[in-house]
Amino acid sequence: MRIDIITVLPELLKSPFEASILKRAIEKDLVEIHMHNLRDYATGNYRQIDDYQFGGGAGMVMMVEPIDKCISQLQAEREYDEIIYMTPDGTTLNQRTANELSLKGNMIILCGHYKGVDQRVRDMFVTREISIGDYVLSGGELAAAILCDAVIRLIPGVLNDETSALTDSFQDNLLAPPVYTRPAEYKGREVPKILLSGNLPEIEKWREQQALERTQKRRPDLLE
Amino acid sequence: MRIDIITVLPELLKSPFEASILKRAIEKDLVEIHMHNLRDYATGNYRQIDDYQFGGGAGMVMMVEPIDKCISQLQAEREYDEIIYMTPDGTTLNQRTANELSLKGNMIILCGHYKGVDQRVRDMFVTREISIGDYVLSGGELAAAILCDAVIRLIPGVLNDETSALTDSFQDNLLAPPVYTRPAEYKGREVPKILLSGNLPEIEKWREQQALERTQKRRPDLLE
Repeated sequence: MRIDIITVLPELLKSPFEASILKRAIEKDLVEIHMHNLRDYATGNYRQIDDYQFGGGAGMVMMVEPIDKCISQLQAEREYDEIIYMTPDGTTLNQRTANELSLKGNMIILCGHYKGVDQRVRDMFVTREISIGDYVLSGGELAAAILCDAVIRLIPGVLNDETSALTDSFQDNLLAPPVYTRPAEYKGREVPKILLSGNLPEIEKWREQQALERTQKRRPDLLE
Repeated sequence: MRIDIITVLPELLKSPFEASILKRAIEKDLVEIHMHNLRDYATGNYRQIDDYQFGGGAGMVMMVEPIDKCISQLQAEREYDEIIYMTPDGTTLNQRTANELSLKGNMIILCGHYKGVDQRVRDMFVTREISIGDYVLSGGELAAAILCDAVIRLIPGVLNDETSALTDSFQDNLLAPPVYTRPAEYKGREVPKILLSGNLPEIEKWREQQALERTQKRRPDLLE
């Protein structure tokens, strides 16, 4: 997989890709991440990438031309399966979409900033608009990092233990059951006895029941 | 506002807090961010912070004792309004929660990792469990960064133009209308004429209608 991230703040995205799972995936050559500073595609002395919005109102809008130049240059070099725009009014990311995107080859992720991009960027280039949730961020950069993390950890070989991802929350539309580790008793609080029993079929049954109860209580919408 | 982030990967969170809005909020003394490396609170030669889960199964569980030590030390120094655990089975973050949290004083954010924390941590300390969306991440660090960004940008004085946040998506349960900036025509695509008219009441009416149409089409659930 190759992901090209177009951003006005490449420095913001530095450390998330230099640590943990994403770092390991890059080192194992399971994914390539390329950052593109949008300002490198701007014209004029001021390297302008945003401007006031037509019709007035607070907040700057990212201009179509630098984005067009950057995307067109990338498209001249290779084909892309998706050009994704991170925006709060996009389709809400869920585990199913993460699974689907983990099978793709080349993707561009465009990070919105300020009031977002000129609508013509969305009309001309974008194949998929994704929101990571119903809240507003100061830019699409962290949202892009979230999308990369959710997708890349699903690529076979990225996680050490592949069964680990399969028992996460949402993979089966259930929240995960409670987990415990040593010590068996801590400040008077004991681990449920069943988990110490060694009776694997009964433990499995208990976990399924706990997962179902937790989902019913916290997220009944997942069961509909 | 003061936010203490407890994590096993403080290095992952470095750049997001050194750029853009979060950096500016810190420089303006509107928020203090303190990172705590959980490993500093571990005991023994191996500085162990996780262990196998009781009952078997893939994935490590974060131990209760180092987290207890870290939280207890912080609580000995000051009072906290919230101890938030980032977890996919928490309550889904939305703009209302972000608004609410932007009014708090001191908060602890605990980043889960691996299979999550020992359930007793949740029972003993956590006041609020938050998920940023229905997908699984390799850790709670990026989710914590998202929460900080969503909350901190709402603190008065953080954004340059306060009206800018008020017209974002979700603040009024509507998605934002399309935005355009110069040039008025790009590769044959024109900006809607109304936005060039200078007729502010008509522009406002058009924007409201576009916001409503976009919400009806993309996110009818927001209108219910």
